[in-house]
Amino acid sequence: MSGLTHIDEQGNAHMVDVSAKPTTARQAIATGRISMSREAAAAIAHGHVKKGDVLSVARIAGIMAAKRTADLIPLCHPLPLAAVTIEFDMDADSVTVTAKARTAAQTGVEMEAMTAASVTLLTIYDMAKALDKGMIIDGVRLLAKSGGKSGEWRAP
Amino acid sequence: MSGLTHIDEQGNAHMVDVSAKPTTARQAIATGRISMSREAAAAIAHGHVKKGDVLSVARIAGIMAAKRTADLIPLCHPLPLAAVTIEFDMDADSVTVTAKARTAAQTGVEMEAMTAASVTLLTIYDMAKALDKGMIIDGVRLLAKSGGKSGEWRAP
Amino acid sequence: MSGLTHIDEQGNAHMVDVSAKPTTARQAIATGRISMSREAAAAIAHGHVKKGDVLSVARIAGIMAAKRTADLIPLCHPLPLAAVTIEFDMDADSVTVTAKARTAAQTGVEMEAMTAASVTLLTIYDMAKALDKGMIIDGVRLLAKSGGKSGEWRAP
Amino acid sequence: MSGLTHIDEQGNAHMVDVSAKPTTARQAIATGRISMSREAAAAIAHGHVKKGDVLSVARIAGIMAAKRTADLIPLCHPLPLAAVTIEFDMDADSVTVTAKARTAAQTGVEMEAMTAASVTLLTIYDMAKALDKGMIIDGVRLLAKSGGKSGEWRAP
Amino acid sequence: MSGLTHIDEQGNAHMVDVSAKPTTARQAIATGRISMSREAAAAIAHGHVKKGDVLSVARIAGIMAAKRTADLIPLCHPLPLAAVTIEFDMDADSVTVTAKARTAAQTGVEMEAMTAASVTLLTIYDMAKALDKGMIIDGVRLLAKSGGKSGEWRAP
Amino acid sequence: MSGLTHIDEQGNAHMVDVSAKPTTARQAIATGRISMSREAAAAIAHGHVKKGDVLSVARIAGIMAAKRTADLIPLCHPLPLAAVTIEFDMDADSVTVTAKARTAAQTGVEMEAMTAASVTLLTIYDMAKALDKGMIIDGVRLLAKSGGKSGEWRAP
Repeated sequence: MSGLTHIDEQGNAHMVDVSAKPTTARQAIATGRISMSREAAAAIAHGHVKKGDVLSVARIAGIMAAKRTADLIPLCHPLPLAAVTIEFDMDADSVTVTAKARTAAQTGVEMEAMTAASVTLLTIYDMAKALDKGMIIDGVRLLAKSGGKSGEWRAP
Repeated sequence: MSGLTHIDEQGNAHMVDVSAKPTTARQAIATGRISMSREAAAAIAHGHVKKGDVLSVARIAGIMAAKRTADLIPLCHPLPLAAVTIEFDMDADSVTVTAKARTAAQTGVEMEAMTAASVTLLTIYDMAKALDKGMIIDGVRLLAKSGGKSGEWRAP
Repeated sequence: MSGLTHIDEQGNAHMVDVSAKPTTARQAIATGRISMSREAAAAIAHGHVKKGDVLSVARIAGIMAAKRTADLIPLCHPLPLAAVTIEFDMDADSVTVTAKARTAAQTGVEMEAMTAASVTLLTIYDMAKALDKGMIIDGVRLLAKSGGKSGEWRAP
Repeated sequence: MSGLTHIDEQGNAHMVDVSAKPTTARQAIATGRISMSREAAAAIAHGHVKKGDVLSVARIAGIMAAKRTADLIPLCHPLPLAAVTIEFDMDADSVTVTAKARTAAQTGVEMEAMTAASVTLLTIYDMAKALDKGMIIDGVRLLAKSGGKSGEWRAP
Repeated sequence: MSGLTHIDEQGNAHMVDVSAKPTTARQAIATGRISMSREAAAAIAHGHVKKGDVLSVARIAGIMAAKRTADLIPLCHPLPLAAVTIEFDMDADSVTVTAKARTAAQTGVEMEAMTAASVTLLTIYDMAKALDKGMIIDGVRLLAKSGGKSGEWRAP
Repeated sequence: MSGLTHIDEQGNAHMVDVSAKPTTARQAIATGRISMSREAAAAIAHGHVKKGDVLSVARIAGIMAAKRTADLIPLCHPLPLAAVTIEFDMDADSVTVTAKARTAAQTGVEMEAMTAASVTLLTIYDMAKALDKGMIIDGVRLLAKSGGKSGEWRAP
């Protein structure tokens, strides 16, 4: 056995059967960072002070992507998201994104949080790429999850 | 002026008008890497040798996501993708993804390549997270683009 | 505090956390009207008598749109729609649409009913615009809702 | 003959064949208004001054909906949108939306502009409904179009 | 070499590069049949005479599915559909569907016609399954295609 | 009364109200077969032995389509799929697909299983059509369902 839950004993992909799992409250927090030139960061920060649009658009993109996670990730279960929030932390040459997702479901919301963080970062890339095509997305990972059989988990 | 093309002079988001641009051949290549425990990497590699399913599923997810880029990234133009390929390079504790997109359009395919790479990596995370929740996605960036007014570009 | 539930204390958009709300039966009814030339209304009515296609197509568009509400409205929660109906009332120069949506969920179905009514009206516009580009959609509003903490509400 | 182009001679719905039409530059402008209590309008305006989020979210929703028009309106042709802009005009008890869409295609962008305006207005409703469930959407209509066989058209 | 165009020389799936192909007029016709009890066929026919709704709904589902083909079939290219029509032929215990799709593109519309026929048939199944769960879909195939390098093809 | 549950007493299509139905465990199994030339079957089988890609891609397409059933079939209820599996059985000139779907919901998963089988078969068609355009999809039907008011059902 491979330990890969989405691969059955014959080595084929499948959507894991969660029908016998209890419905419990679930939460997941993911993060990621996009590094860029100081010029690009300043343009985003300037926009943020005046109209908020770059980060505001990226936030909306991340929230909408969270709702489409099961449509993007082939073996992910659809689930009724109860809440999604996206927060930003800017410094002189990067933006850090933190995405939090909650639900009450038979399966976790890790992928919803990871997808929200990734699409938020991609949207920042899209909106600032005229200033800096060399921006790099790093450190996209799960920070914490709770709920379900495996319970609480925090990134080491 | 902020230099952010998706923000107009009043600071509002908009879809940039590309109607006066010529239709030219465009290509973009993006990459990214997911780091994981040796156990998770071995399970994926083992699957790869036997049935190919983890990377095969991730590849399909990336290709399908490329086709939905304009649906995910708010200010991205829809365009008729002519080709998408996803390649993998594995070592003992990571998988590197390279995504290439091509089209003939009035605007570039950078976001299609970046989105394909990101969703491919997210799918690997999803399929291996039972073995290692601490996997980290790094180095998601554009390697090269060609076509359009700004012409050839390569990551430094 | 602004009273706008989708905006948090820092003024940022978020998907409101409904995870602590009880699941209750919910219903919402929305309406709207499209005014048009008598010629266009007659063509639709004539079609209705013979094959029903204009209004039948618009009804299907409205029902399908109701199911995609959370995909269209950025901060709307996804929910499992239990029923959607669309009814029409025609007179000599307009069509009035009434859309009803039901669910058992942690949040209401007002947006599903409003979206169903709007897309039904847009589809009538699309199908009759060769006869009358000047058609006007008016009076799109919620007529009634029930269920949830705020309980029964009727338009004054 | 009914004059309804989406209905064939047997009275059945179909997607009109545009394959013989020339590709020309097309533009369409649509508008619509949402009326609300002064309290709701003030909350939106206040948000606008501080962070721009209500109208910013609604604008993004409208732009994204424009790109999905052919997915929502059953007999609408898919087309490569070249530009979409959404503008707002606020007064003490309403918000007026103006949506403009452009493309070079074999068929017009009227439905893209109409859909963008409608979904922008629905999103404002969603975000302010906690303050005023009785908001009404009125006057959704085409203001002008250009391009194609029928050429220039302006609302009387 | 396998002859499977979607599989590259290393055996991996990819979206075939069509960027060097000329844009030509393309057409494809697909068909399929659903067999059912006489009772179910009579109910559909009766509905057809009175309101047309079963077949009318199925037709709309097929047309909308044609527009989403590239979203459903992983390695299919997105293309701007110029026309879709769905026709029905009923007898005492079956409905035959004929779907026709047209475009001007670098790649063919066979999958659009096949997808339209399949989803039309699935919708008939859905709408009549309360009367007959045992309905069978048969004979889904391409009848003819034209355009592109391989030119005219007709089912033998 | 027609016996067609999706058509109301006035002959109009609607989404049946399931809000009063209990949530029960549901399962459905559907099947279908695609017949092809021995050359095409051999190419798929050869691929299967080496890399698994044709059937692996088709399986992913079927699983993803199952999750989008309510988006494709107009009057189908959205439901939280708990599991989807796709199995293949190959012989010298055909591939048989068996799709199984499970959920706990107020309505059945027959359409999810039927849609998964159909889109899996369409994807095989797409991937092998360069070798054989004359492939035929036959025998798409429900094999069994369980759960809900009508309980257990097996194809005769």
